[in-house]
Amino acid sequence: MKTLHVDLGERSYPIYIGQNLIGRPELYSDHIGGRQVMIVTNTTIAPLYLETVRQALRECTTEAVILPDGEEYKTLETLDLIFTALLEKRFDRSATLIALGGGVIGDMAGFAAACYQRGIDFIQVPTTLLSQVDSSVGGKTAVNHPLGKNMIGAFYQPRCVIADIETLNTLEDRQLSAGLAEVIKYGILGNKAFFEWQEHHMQDLVGRDPEALTYAIEHSCRDKAEIVARDERESGIRALLNLGHTFGHAIEAGMGYGKWLHGEAVAAGMAMAMDLSQRLGWITEDETRRVIKLLQVANLPTKAPSELSPETMLERMAVDKKAADGQIRLVLVRNIGNTVVTREYDQAALMETLNRCRA
Amino acid sequence: MKTLHVDLGERSYPIYIGQNLIGRPELYSDHIGGRQVMIVTNTTIAPLYLETVRQALRECTTEAVILPDGEEYKTLETLDLIFTALLEKRFDRSATLIALGGGVIGDMAGFAAACYQRGIDFIQVPTTLLSQVDSSVGGKTAVNHPLGKNMIGAFYQPRCVIADIETLNTLEDRQLSAGLAEVIKYGILGNKAFFEWQEHHMQDLVGRDPEALTYAIEHSCRDKAEIVARDERESGIRALLNLGHTFGHAIEAGMGYGKWLHGEAVAAGMAMAMDLSQRLGWITEDETRRVIKLLQVANLPTKAPSELSPETMLERMAVDKKAADGQIRLVLVRNIGNTVVTREYDQAALMETLNRCRA
Repeated sequence: MKTLHVDLGERSYPIYIGQNLIGRPELYSDHIGGRQVMIVTNTTIAPLYLETVRQALRECTTEAVILPDGEEYKTLETLDLIFTALLEKRFDRSATLIALGGGVIGDMAGFAAACYQRGIDFIQVPTTLLSQVDSSVGGKTAVNHPLGKNMIGAFYQPRCVIADIETLNTLEDRQLSAGLAEVIKYGILGNKAFFEWQEHHMQDLVGRDPEALTYAIEHSCRDKAEIVARDERESGIRALLNLGHTFGHAIEAGMGYGKWLHGEAVAAGMAMAMDLSQRLGWITEDETRRVIKLLQVANLPTKAPSELSPETMLERMAVDKKAADGQIRLVLVRNIGNTVVTREYDQAALMETLNRCRA
Repeated sequence: MKTLHVDLGERSYPIYIGQNLIGRPELYSDHIGGRQVMIVTNTTIAPLYLETVRQALRECTTEAVILPDGEEYKTLETLDLIFTALLEKRFDRSATLIALGGGVIGDMAGFAAACYQRGIDFIQVPTTLLSQVDSSVGGKTAVNHPLGKNMIGAFYQPRCVIADIETLNTLEDRQLSAGLAEVIKYGILGNKAFFEWQEHHMQDLVGRDPEALTYAIEHSCRDKAEIVARDERESGIRALLNLGHTFGHAIEAGMGYGKWLHGEAVAAGMAMAMDLSQRLGWITEDETRRVIKLLQVANLPTKAPSELSPETMLERMAVDKKAADGQIRLVLVRNIGNTVVTREYDQAALMETLNRCRA
């Protein structure tokens, strides 16, 4: 087992990465203050892992709330089901909430923990590659609104994260690929050596090789933790983590939440950010080609869906939270391993990208 | 104008107290970062003060969302109206939200600001005595849940508070009295001199004498600010501020939100806390009598409603967030100006109080 420490002063916490972790009581007990534990999970994950987690927590009073599975349920209404469960069971402020599932569960359970009685403890047990490399680091919690993704939420840190590689064996291929999109992002973002490692090991990752997965999760989490530690509330460099996300959110929202997976939309978004960066003369054709190839080996899309017109995309991008005072801020690429957040780009080049990068 | 500073490190903010403040642009402009301002108010306050506030903000892009008036609308559903207004107008993370109204508006608008895009700036413009002395200091924001009051919320500080005495002239007598309940609380809580001042000036306060009101608001805010500065997240002494609140919340929830005003329920709750403290032999009959008298001069109730049985009261109290691990923690009185948070009391005495303190 690898242990990674996210350094955020009094809100610091460890991430445990390894095989067969979710059944180990000591990983939880160090981080649970009271006796009441509410496990928040969904209908897909509950039959697979709920009992194992419950067994590991048998020293506590455990209850579970099992939500419907899917991004389309990441709403205020579903959140209310968690609050109702907590209140019906008379959970008080010393209670701990455990998020057992993917990013949607983590985002919702984390936000519920942030709001219930103005904040209770929570533990992340991410069961998808995407949530293991991404949403379990950084403290971002949220639900969607019909008018925008992740528009309602909080910055709220877990007490610990338990990333069990073993749970990835029950993951669909499409979900695994979606997670790999974020792994690829960390390479492009600021770690050229990691990008090159991926060029040699992407087939192993797609084939779920445990050693390759452990390496990829550890390095993705480390890269993200470093950035988050320097900018917890996203006022500066943390915005770099949004590489591909402004394009990606426009695709997700435009298609209707749940049609495209978050990682798929980010993959297409990263390809678009590369395309725009190349049009601006910042990167070479070869660099774009390498990123596209890596995305393809990971079985990820590299273009926006044909259903979305460039105008629709632009409108959706403007409502995204990365827009300040109406102007769209984008994360663009100087070269692999070096990205910038900027509003300094030619609007015509952006329209070209939106026109050309459609399936 | 008096200016009081609430000292919370980088979250410190000023409270401005005085006459004719809501129309002064400079009180807002120092605390507004971007250009987008959303005023959250209700159908009662909007016709009285919305235009004045808008005029003071004419340098900004202002929008308003006008909510229905009443505690029964302090829900997740109403909160969503604020999010929808913000998103429809494309407000970004640099926007500022202004809470123009009483405690319900302040709690909801503050919580909306805490959650919108994971946190935007907000300014409190409390227009009731209760919100001026209480909910505008301390950073507690929340909405109610059918199963419990203020169960969903956040600790979130405003950029500034503008407490305009002038707005109290349009306040109903019953609302004024409800505010006086909290003023009386600060006397009992830890400031015997302030309690004695009130014994001499309660008639002036009921008669809305501006000088007496300014004095009372300033001293209540100062007492509260001192306690909050020492315990921002309510892990210790801040719990003292809940004097009368555990009984009070049980009355509010038991009668259905909106029937009893918060301050009325707290008044009866304080009388009950005095009664129980006296039964335990901690305070004299004379001290209880003085508190009851002060509450009566302020036209406040001193007993729980006859509709609520002691058993119902007890059940409601147990679900209140002040209960940890199922045991009910209460704020009780050692003597006027000296209160304690305790679980060390005779259950039979509590039942006596619940039986005797009914109308």
